[in-house]
Amino acid sequence: MSQNKGVEILCIGSELLLGNILNSNAKWLAEQLSLLGLPHYLQTVVGDNHERLKNVLSDASKRSSILITTGGLGPTPDDITTETIASTFEAELIESSIIIQDIKSKFKDNFKLPKNNFKQAKIPKGAQIVPNPTGTAPGIIWKPKDDFTVITLPGVPSEMKLMWEKTIKYWLSKSFNSRKIINSKILNFSGISESKLVEMIPDILINKNPTVAPYASLGEVKLRITAQAKTIDETNYLIEPIEDKLKKLFNTNIFSNDNQTLASVVINLLRKRNESISVAESCTGGNLASAITAIPGSSDVFLGGIVAYNNQIKQNILGVPSALIKQYGAVSGPVAKSMALGIRKTFQTDWSISISGIAGPNGGTENKPIGRVEFFIKGEKYQESIQENFGSHRSRSDIQKLSVVRALDRLRLFLLK
Amino acid sequence: MSQNKGVEILCIGSELLLGNILNSNAKWLAEQLSLLGLPHYLQTVVGDNHERLKNVLSDASKRSSILITTGGLGPTPDDITTETIASTFEAELIESSIIIQDIKSKFKDNFKLPKNNFKQAKIPKGAQIVPNPTGTAPGIIWKPKDDFTVITLPGVPSEMKLMWEKTIKYWLSKSFNSRKIINSKILNFSGISESKLVEMIPDILINKNPTVAPYASLGEVKLRITAQAKTIDETNYLIEPIEDKLKKLFNTNIFSNDNQTLASVVINLLRKRNESISVAESCTGGNLASAITAIPGSSDVFLGGIVAYNNQIKQNILGVPSALIKQYGAVSGPVAKSMALGIRKTFQTDWSISISGIAGPNGGTENKPIGRVEFFIKGEKYQESIQENFGSHRSRSDIQKLSVVRALDRLRLFLLK
Repeated sequence: MSQNKGVEILCIGSELLLGNILNSNAKWLAEQLSLLGLPHYLQTVVGDNHERLKNVLSDASKRSSILITTGGLGPTPDDITTETIASTFEAELIESSIIIQDIKSKFKDNFKLPKNNFKQAKIPKGAQIVPNPTGTAPGIIWKPKDDFTVITLPGVPSEMKLMWEKTIKYWLSKSFNSRKIINSKILNFSGISESKLVEMIPDILINKNPTVAPYASLGEVKLRITAQAKTIDETNYLIEPIEDKLKKLFNTNIFSNDNQTLASVVINLLRKRNESISVAESCTGGNLASAITAIPGSSDVFLGGIVAYNNQIKQNILGVPSALIKQYGAVSGPVAKSMALGIRKTFQTDWSISISGIAGPNGGTENKPIGRVEFFIKGEKYQESIQENFGSHRSRSDIQKLSVVRALDRLRLFLLK
Repeated sequence: MSQNKGVEILCIGSELLLGNILNSNAKWLAEQLSLLGLPHYLQTVVGDNHERLKNVLSDASKRSSILITTGGLGPTPDDITTETIASTFEAELIESSIIIQDIKSKFKDNFKLPKNNFKQAKIPKGAQIVPNPTGTAPGIIWKPKDDFTVITLPGVPSEMKLMWEKTIKYWLSKSFNSRKIINSKILNFSGISESKLVEMIPDILINKNPTVAPYASLGEVKLRITAQAKTIDETNYLIEPIEDKLKKLFNTNIFSNDNQTLASVVINLLRKRNESISVAESCTGGNLASAITAIPGSSDVFLGGIVAYNNQIKQNILGVPSALIKQYGAVSGPVAKSMALGIRKTFQTDWSISISGIAGPNGGTENKPIGRVEFFIKGEKYQESIQENFGSHRSRSDIQKLSVVRALDRLRLFLLK
């Protein structure tokens, strides 16, 4: 790569210009370029318009060494990325039999390939195919002129990311291996707010190499420690003392040092102890079970759960006494406890978690506002009743997600004892 | 505004190039431009770098009538937007006493104004000030050359949005009040692939006003019909005949004409029929229940469900005979049927859905590959056994999500009968 020229990102799609969707692809790619230590100076968004796309491609080929595009690789007439790239650099499009075979294999047996999909098999002469393991739109790596390579990726985030991980990452590392590498380590925190965390480490946050930056998402905070050096070992040598310092300072507030999910950490802890779990959900309506079963191998410890959305189900299936519901209401400590005991007995597991709350947007009262959630965790030796008020300003989906995070985190703390 | 020239958005900030944050400003501004009916063809992101920023500014002044920038208006040395704009178009920066007064009023009494903030009071000669009601960074509206106006806004979303609402929106409407408004309608499709859909409507897709564009996401396709006219009524008048034509052509493949989710459509259908539902999930592990309970008011029809992740639970709680599991395996039509019958009986609902499949990444065999999913839908009069092969190239999460879409869609078709 020449001096001062870098990698440029071009996202193609009218939906971005209409403001229909957030450009999460540009953010993700920018992050990946950072991790590889590649200089990235410019991002552009254009619609599915031949002339304007051509102008950007031509400009990019003058100012950047590498252009990564996303979008416009689909089978429909408004997907014009590949043909516009070919025409901008005056190359012939040729049909690739490898791509045709790949697309055919992805359609069902005996299904006639729609004519439109043949379009996806055409690439500029001399271009390298970037396989798409899950979709029908392959990408290309193509060098149409000196010191300029264009890489195309589909706009569907899951396909784009997988192709990056499987092909692009290695191609870029191999092609530009002389640069200083950037290496990051992520620490995941729970049970502490971003502002509280930041307040505790002013000295660490002004560090230069490694840098330490906080990121907050719903119910979770991350610290990213990023070091630059010539080798991975050297970056790790820079990262370790900071990591140790943070671990001492925050102890069990750090639930992972390799960006695992809370569910995954909890499953690993249960697997080590050879213990099983079941869940009884009301307001989270299956979200806790989903978070657990999102992890491959969760069946080792997770037997199942009951979504007791209706009080009748709480009574009939979980054995919650109707008098208890009448006296305390479905969202109450005693009912949550009865649900946890019920599911643990019925499913015969070592642990159980119950959740009952008011997720909104309706159903809140003065005594039990939206955002009030009751949890019960039951094990052989330990048990705990937890009440949370996540706040009635929160959305239904946020309250459901925060409840799942809290339930898993409390169980994790038990399992660490 | 000249023919073919439009409004361009330029977001300035190295944090965007490092991938630290999503460019939500670009999305929001793009949406606002759509609502005003202003043509918007290009978005750019650059870092806080004088030379590169200058290049983009100069290019933009040739290809667009209006450039809206966000970011780089702060008091620190890396905030260089205003001075770079002035130097690009060779204008003098002058200190505005109005801005000085405004900034002073925003600092506490007797607080000495930090020297850095004086920088924010300097604007190009002839520029109009855009007041910032909540922050210290004002914006400008400035016409440095014929048919080119640059508008600067801060990068802080709340400040940017307020300044848009209070000043920019009116300035743009007044300056371009003869323009047409843009109005969109979205039709949601299920049970048809994007390529198949597109193949059926080549004539509609080349329509100019309204335009019709397809968008695909996992298991779902949308068509957006976008019309331009002087009034909302006129746009609807243009959209209706296209919508009617599509409805006739695709019939029940269209599940919503107002961008509802499948779960929401199914819940509304059940509510109209005054019927209830329960679910028994294995491989989807709570995802179907979650999709249903994501909808406020789902408790009207959804009683609950069982996540029978373990075979023992399928037997003990759902009453699936162990002989059936032994003979056919847990992922089989007979077991799915037994699960659906079991949950319907136990939960005493009008309808039930069961799902049992192999979501991967492990557990696939030659006879039952990853992606094989068995469904059973049971109602009073109707029942159906469905087998799907989503493909072993798919991720666990995709197979789970596709299963939920398929289950809800099949039930929807029953409910329409």
